[in-house]
Formats: sequence, C-alpha cells, structure tokens
Amino acid sequence: MAKKSAQVQSVRDAFRVLPESFDLAGLDPAAAPVGPKSKAEAAADMVEVGAQLDDLQEALYAEGTGGGRRSVLLVLQGMDTSGKGGTIRHVAGLVNPQGLHIASFKKPTAAERRHDFLWRIRRQVPAPGMIGVFDRSHYEEVLIARVDGLVPAAEWRRRYELINEFESELVGSGVTVVKCFLHISPERQKERLVARLEDPAKRWKYNPHDIEVRAKFSQYRSAYQDALVKCATPVAPWFAIPSDRKWYRNWAVARVLLETLQEVAPVYPEPSYDPLVELARLREADPLR
Amino acid sequence: MAKKSAQVQSVRDAFRVLPESFDLAGLDPAAAPVGPKSKAEAAADMVEVGAQLDDLQEALYAEGTGGGRRSVLLVLQGMDTSGKGGTIRHVAGLVNPQGLHIASFKKPTAAERRHDFLWRIRRQVPAPGMIGVFDRSHYEEVLIARVDGLVPAAEWRRRYELINEFESELVGSGVTVVKCFLHISPERQKERLVARLEDPAKRWKYNPHDIEVRAKFSQYRSAYQDALVKCATPVAPWFAIPSDRKWYRNWAVARVLLETLQEVAPVYPEPSYDPLVELARLREADPLR
Repeated sequence: MAKKSAQVQSVRDAFRVLPESFDLAGLDPAAAPVGPKSKAEAAADMVEVGAQLDDLQEALYAEGTGGGRRSVLLVLQGMDTSGKGGTIRHVAGLVNPQGLHIASFKKPTAAERRHDFLWRIRRQVPAPGMIGVFDRSHYEEVLIARVDGLVPAAEWRRRYELINEFESELVGSGVTVVKCFLHISPERQKERLVARLEDPAKRWKYNPHDIEVRAKFSQYRSAYQDALVKCATPVAPWFAIPSDRKWYRNWAVARVLLETLQEVAPVYPEPSYDPLVELARLREADPLR
Repeated sequence: MAKKSAQVQSVRDAFRVLPESFDLAGLDPAAAPVGPKSKAEAAADMVEVGAQLDDLQEALYAEGTGGGRRSVLLVLQGMDTSGKGGTIRHVAGLVNPQGLHIASFKKPTAAERRHDFLWRIRRQVPAPGMIGVFDRSHYEEVLIARVDGLVPAAEWRRRYELINEFESELVGSGVTVVKCFLHISPERQKERLVARLEDPAKRWKYNPHDIEVRAKFSQYRSAYQDALVKCATPVAPWFAIPSDRKWYRNWAVARVLLETLQEVAPVYPEPSYDPLVELARLREADPLR
C-alpha cells in the first residue's frame, strides 16, 4: 500500500478545507478535481478501495481486541438530500458491519437538551477498534441552532471553540477524526426532493418542513462556511466533498476514509500465546483428533 | 416476490428444527439439502438475495420511521469457528449498515452478572425498523453455563422456559425472531483453528482456551440439542445450518433471513402529507427556484 500513498494522499488534499482560503460559495458542487471522470471509472476504483478499506478495518478491529485504543470517526454533514444516508450505504457498506458504529443525530430530545450539547455526542464516540460514522453531529449546534436562532448568538459563537476542544480531546484519546461536508447545489437538491415525492418508495424520506429549511439555503451556507473554517483544525480536518453527483461523492468520501485509515496504519496485535506451541497442542494433544 | 415464495419457503423448511424429530448428532454439517451445488452457483444467487434483502430492509426501515413497530432479530449461535462473524460480514453486509444493530455477547461482565440473565439481552433488542443481529446470545446461558457448570442444573433447566417466554414477548411486541445454529464438524473446526494459527492476520481470533472448549465438543452438542429442541417454538423457530462450507452457510442464512423478511412484508408508510401539494409547493412556490 505504501507505493500508492503519493497518489492517494492527493485525494485528501484535493478536498481539504484550508481555513485561510476556503470559500464555500465559490466551490463547485459538481467539481471533480481529482479521480474518476465517469461513473464506470469510479465503480472500478471502488472495488479496489473497498478491498483496501475492508483489510484496514479488519486490522483496526483486531488491534482493538488486542488492547489497542485507536478508532476512527467519520463525521458526515450536509444539507437535506446531500447524501449522508447514501454515503453510509455505499462507503460504510464496503466494510464489515461488525466493525461499524453508526449514530444518527436527530433533533435533540427533551432529555438530551437538559445536558450539555456534547453529552449525547460523547455517548456515541466509537470504541477502540471501531469505525464510527456520525450522520449529522455536534455541528448541528452551530448550524440549525444558529440559523433558527435556537440559542443566543453568544452561545453558538462559543461552541466553535468547545467543539475544537472536544475533538482535540478525542484525538488525544486515540480517535482519528475525519469530517466530510457533502456539498450540494440548490438546483440538485430540488431535483432530489422532487424525485423523493414522485417515487412512492422514497416519500418516507421527505418532510414538508424540508422546504422551509431549503428557503434558508444561503443562511446555512454562511453557517457552514464558518463551521468549516473555524473547526478545520490540523488534528480534525474538514473535507468539502462535491456531492452533486452521487458516484463522485461516494468515491471521494471512500478515498478520504481510505487515506485516513492508511495513515492510522492499524496493526494486528501480537498474539499473547506462542502459535507454534498452540499448533502442537492442537495437532498432537487434541482431545478430538 | 410473491411468485417466488413457494421455492423460497422450501429453504427455511429444509433447515427448520422440528422438536419432535431433531437429532443434532445425526445431522451432516456438510449437507446441502437445498439450493446451490457449488460456490459459483451460491455466489450468483447471493447477488439476487442481496438485492431483495436490501429492498426489504429499506422498506422495514422506512416503516419504522413512519411509526411502524416491527423489527427483525437474527440470532447466531455456533461453536468456535462455525462462522458467526463471517455470516455477519457476508449476510448482514448485504444490507445498508444504517439499518443494522449488531450486538456481540461476550462473557458477562461483573456488572451484567448482577442482573437477571436477560437484562443485557433486552438492552440490545433491535428498535423498530431495524434488523438486529446477535453474535452469541441469551442461549449461552443454557450452553456454556451448563457445560461449565456455572450455575446449578436447576437454574439452567429453568432457563429454557424463561427464554421461550422472553422470545414470545419479543414477538408480541413486533420483533420477528429467527435463530440460526451454525453446525460445524469437529474436523472442520480443527482445520480452521490451525488456519488461524498459521496466518499472522488471523491469530487475533485464536485463544488458547479454544482447545479446552473444543475438548467439550460432545457436551456442547448435547447442550445445543436440548436448547434447539426446547426453544424451537412456532413463533421463534430455530434453523440448523450446515456450516462446514462457508459459501453454503452464508447462502443458507441469507435465504432464511430473506424468507423471514418476505413474510414480515414491510410496507412503506403512507406519507403524512399530500405529495401533489408538496410537488406544487416545491415547483411553484420554491423560494430558491
């Protein structure tokens, strides 16, 4: 895998949010700065990515069973229809589900709201050996909370720093944090909302409130701009993924996750027993031979 | 799908544990009473099974978001190396991981042991809309607990009835329970233990204690015989899956799960809104059009 790292590294760099220059409004949601030029090319690469992800996930899981403390957390954020669910299906779906911990953060319940805003998030941090996936996250607390004025401005303004401290603490405890913003255009969102309404098997994904949220597309863009810039830290980077084309989005997130795992470089634990002794026990002293 | 139910039904029936006649010692772990005759045939059918499972799982999940109360629980039991983990990877891996709730039951912790033996199990019952998978389960309480004499005989003997009551309660609350025993021969188990020891990437799966457990293969067989016969109820059936060949085991569990979901026949919820009104709102009054 080492020989591929130069090529692979460039995928993450192509999408990395650089706080000093990042401009969400100027970012093309249909861009393809790197990687496959067609759905077929992407599909072919996904086979390779899937095999590598699967291997690395198994090693991470094994490392965890051997006392390793490391895990990976993939945070997914994006407007309605940007494809958080589809990304989970097609990217997280590439690895053994036993090594996944998926958490969806809906509107906080009354019980959750009585706690600090990070309380319910902390409870879902992936255990050692696991790949955690957050479908929405603590970032909602500087997105909808800001756009809908759910808390005073002084409160959400304070949260960027609290989030950075929280993520830094996670990283310190062995969690590799990788955050992907799925960037979709308002035009593509409209197409997808229409598609949801036209297909009886997709209507459950639609909520009339989606139109109210959509009306605030530009306010959300501002809120995302700030969240990404203020919380794209060296230890917990943000990646802005062009998501108007589903196949490109899936490919990009998969490659970003793969690179992350390659950097983590999980290792199979050394056995706490002597394999040769055990082979001899099994072969020569096996009670059932 | 209805047109396939006759063929499909026969898969479950081929593996169903019939309490009056079931004899585990006489069951061939390499049998193939139904279905594919080769790995290639199985792989071809798995593509079809996967597509259908994926569709049904999505409908179940959608039903749950619409207020439906139903879920499915797949219980996996079997001796070491029988392939509980592999089945999760290859069967549960066929559906969207977001709709899965996988729980592995290891040796109970001291805290868990202070509770009733079903306490930790209840906490992992799949929520509405989910497919739950148990990697080991409450059945350990009549298997290892019996074989190793962890509790008095009077205690484990009482548990069959408690388990049946528990499962009947689950079924009453909307959980469809499907239990698969992965049946492996001692010879194949030995091969797989040797393979784990010989491959550095598989050594983490091996524990020297596995040989002690293996020495009790026939006691476990008796314990399984009783557990399967006493707890194969009409509402929560057991299926004995020949598991000496991994591809056959995966195919069989996948087909059993598929049939179960076909019987559940989840339905997409009726929208709580008028799709035509929403389409008009989106097309004509869309603030972002």
